[in-house]
Amino acid sequence: MNIVDIINKKEEGNELSYEEIKYAVDGYLADEVKDYQMSSLLMAIEIKGMNIEEIYNLTKVMIDSGDIIDLSSINGIKVDKHSTGGVGDKTTLVVGPLAAVCGIKIAKMSGRALGFTGGTIDKLESIKGFNTNLSKEEFINQVNDIGLSITTTAGNLVPADKKIYALRDVSGTTEAIPLIASSIMSKKIASGSDKIIIDVKVGKGAFMKTLDDARLLSKTMIEIGKRFNKEVIAIITNMDYPLGNTIGNSLEVQEAIDTLNGNGDERFTKLCLILSSYMVSVGKNISIEDAFDEVVEKLNNKEGLNKFYEFIKYQGGDINSLEFGKNKIEIKSDKEGYLTDIDTLNLAGFINSLGAGRKDKNDKINPKVGFILTKKINDKIEKNDTLGYVISDSDIDINNLNNYFIIDSKNIDEINIVLDIIK
Amino acid sequence: MNIVDIINKKEEGNELSYEEIKYAVDGYLADEVKDYQMSSLLMAIEIKGMNIEEIYNLTKVMIDSGDIIDLSSINGIKVDKHSTGGVGDKTTLVVGPLAAVCGIKIAKMSGRALGFTGGTIDKLESIKGFNTNLSKEEFINQVNDIGLSITTTAGNLVPADKKIYALRDVSGTTEAIPLIASSIMSKKIASGSDKIIIDVKVGKGAFMKTLDDARLLSKTMIEIGKRFNKEVIAIITNMDYPLGNTIGNSLEVQEAIDTLNGNGDERFTKLCLILSSYMVSVGKNISIEDAFDEVVEKLNNKEGLNKFYEFIKYQGGDINSLEFGKNKIEIKSDKEGYLTDIDTLNLAGFINSLGAGRKDKNDKINPKVGFILTKKINDKIEKNDTLGYVISDSDIDINNLNNYFIIDSKNIDEINIVLDIIK
Repeated sequence: MNIVDIINKKEEGNELSYEEIKYAVDGYLADEVKDYQMSSLLMAIEIKGMNIEEIYNLTKVMIDSGDIIDLSSINGIKVDKHSTGGVGDKTTLVVGPLAAVCGIKIAKMSGRALGFTGGTIDKLESIKGFNTNLSKEEFINQVNDIGLSITTTAGNLVPADKKIYALRDVSGTTEAIPLIASSIMSKKIASGSDKIIIDVKVGKGAFMKTLDDARLLSKTMIEIGKRFNKEVIAIITNMDYPLGNTIGNSLEVQEAIDTLNGNGDERFTKLCLILSSYMVSVGKNISIEDAFDEVVEKLNNKEGLNKFYEFIKYQGGDINSLEFGKNKIEIKSDKEGYLTDIDTLNLAGFINSLGAGRKDKNDKINPKVGFILTKKINDKIEKNDTLGYVISDSDIDINNLNNYFIIDSKNIDEINIVLDIIK
Repeated sequence: MNIVDIINKKEEGNELSYEEIKYAVDGYLADEVKDYQMSSLLMAIEIKGMNIEEIYNLTKVMIDSGDIIDLSSINGIKVDKHSTGGVGDKTTLVVGPLAAVCGIKIAKMSGRALGFTGGTIDKLESIKGFNTNLSKEEFINQVNDIGLSITTTAGNLVPADKKIYALRDVSGTTEAIPLIASSIMSKKIASGSDKIIIDVKVGKGAFMKTLDDARLLSKTMIEIGKRFNKEVIAIITNMDYPLGNTIGNSLEVQEAIDTLNGNGDERFTKLCLILSSYMVSVGKNISIEDAFDEVVEKLNNKEGLNKFYEFIKYQGGDINSLEFGKNKIEIKSDKEGYLTDIDTLNLAGFINSLGAGRKDKNDKINPKVGFILTKKINDKIEKNDTLGYVISDSDIDINNLNNYFIIDSKNIDEINIVLDIIK
């Protein structure tokens, strides 16, 4: 077998065998297949696609490249939740406690983010003392004890995905559905949960730009899950605008608390309730309506909030330690009309540049900085109205940041936060 | 501008601008664009294609990456000939002298080969004393003096092509028509001839597998030539079987001499006459029939042969120095019937492994080894007939080499050596 033949086979649109996929992926991990060969193969896959058998084989080969976490010593149904990534996405911090108090076991491995703003682990690390590096035993004991734990990956999970993901980022192959599906599913399956709810983002601020693509990705992941005997439900959600009303690590932890306290942004709260309802529904095998009622009850009676505090404390965190940048710089509108759009990616890029996210994996995050949105889509805006605040640690130049907020004379049709649910 | 955006633009099938192509190629030469980014872009180009404007721009950017040879101090019309490469292709050694004695100026820069068997320079280096490394002045003076010189490239010609070509070879992107056309045309235009005859090989032993692809490549090169004010004629020729009856460096020089002496293989002689006729026809602006008559005369009266000897001597070579391996190992048929096919690529691979070609650019060539074919396609074969001889320097294992010769009970339809001529 030879990598150039494998590349050419895919370039011609032919199906790669399990052995060929294994040769390419294992060879790449062993540095026998070179970066420039893997990127050429990835581009051929991006353009020519893969059928479900190939995606299944790719997922399997990637899982087999590393450890598989055995969660069998956790009693109860383990349900995992994954988001394909978006600006201001702190859903895990709300959804995890809510599902846990309904009796679901949440043994969640999460990562640090590259690009966008911080990942769930980055957000949790804005809490002083919080241990994101649990041993496998600590992790499992905690889930058995309080139903919820979040840690960085305990073990060498899917090293092939780590290496290929980094290459995709710099070689223009981030948008291929077979590659996204196998990347997500290999990590989810290797991390051991029984059932998986995936929040598939679609829109200007997401990898998937169209609902059709998001549906295809969803169906692909569901089918791959089926072959590994894992139930997968995909919740397709809108990612045209930032999620909730804050961006930035400490700010988003505080927003999660506010949401669990019943004071969350309406759209964000709705998404959290739907995601946690599906987790509870598949986990307890009850109707989605019953699950929804249960989750709403746990939100209203603050059990979710208390579970959040319990979880933070269990992992050594002091929730009163959250710090915020001392500068609060107002962004004012220079026109009047309706807020019809937000340039989410550029706004996130600006907040990242203050230290909220990483450009390089070795960059250090500043948890205190971020942005507070004070207006929602379709809000009526007067001249000089506050559009939001930059929270920073130092004096900064906000330039024409208000240009990221599109004010038009007419309002727009509301876009639902949840666009489709695919089982 | 950013390379990932350029890659994604081509991946989506969009036209790249001159500036984008220049950014990618110049950046790659400067190591700012990485191997894995260029290979991903090359794969996107291979699958999505390029329009003629893009191919022209790519050719231009590649030419501009290095020196352009100025042949204006050569008096007369300079006609170049190029072959897209095949097993046993020694046409330059026959065609050059024949066209030169008809009055065409042949200032040919040629290369060492990688893969297949040796290139023209490798073949010439089997002649002791022959200088393949002329200065620009020596090169031009010789062409003015005797009408013919062949050297390795005098100057830093198209360094972008060298780097990209090496990458294509290992990243599965050798078969893209835009990349082949721009690679050939950039080198031909930078090396300064006025008119160019291109021998486009098609068949099992060539990059172009189908006549349609060969025609598309030909038309592309002709159009690119037109935009640089160079007349290009493409002669599409069959490359299913080895060309002539020898493979290997010293053997092929001897075969060129035999051919110029009137004792060449019929099919090979025909190809040489047609190629040189077109060179003479475009160079002297006479009809192809008149050019053909003139070339045949120069073959019959041995003027071509004498020009060959003069050329070898002028560059310091001793034509009596050719050496051949001392072992001549007979390959016998184990069945009877008609010779209907030869596994040309595997036969060439075997001969290469004896030292006739390179696997790595630093490999040293053994000029003495090779293969002599003693049967032609459709020859009647009896059991134990000689199919050919391996010429080697040492004892070797010929294994089942006769399996590369397909003997069938029925003969096949003859395939013309020249399949099409495109102007």
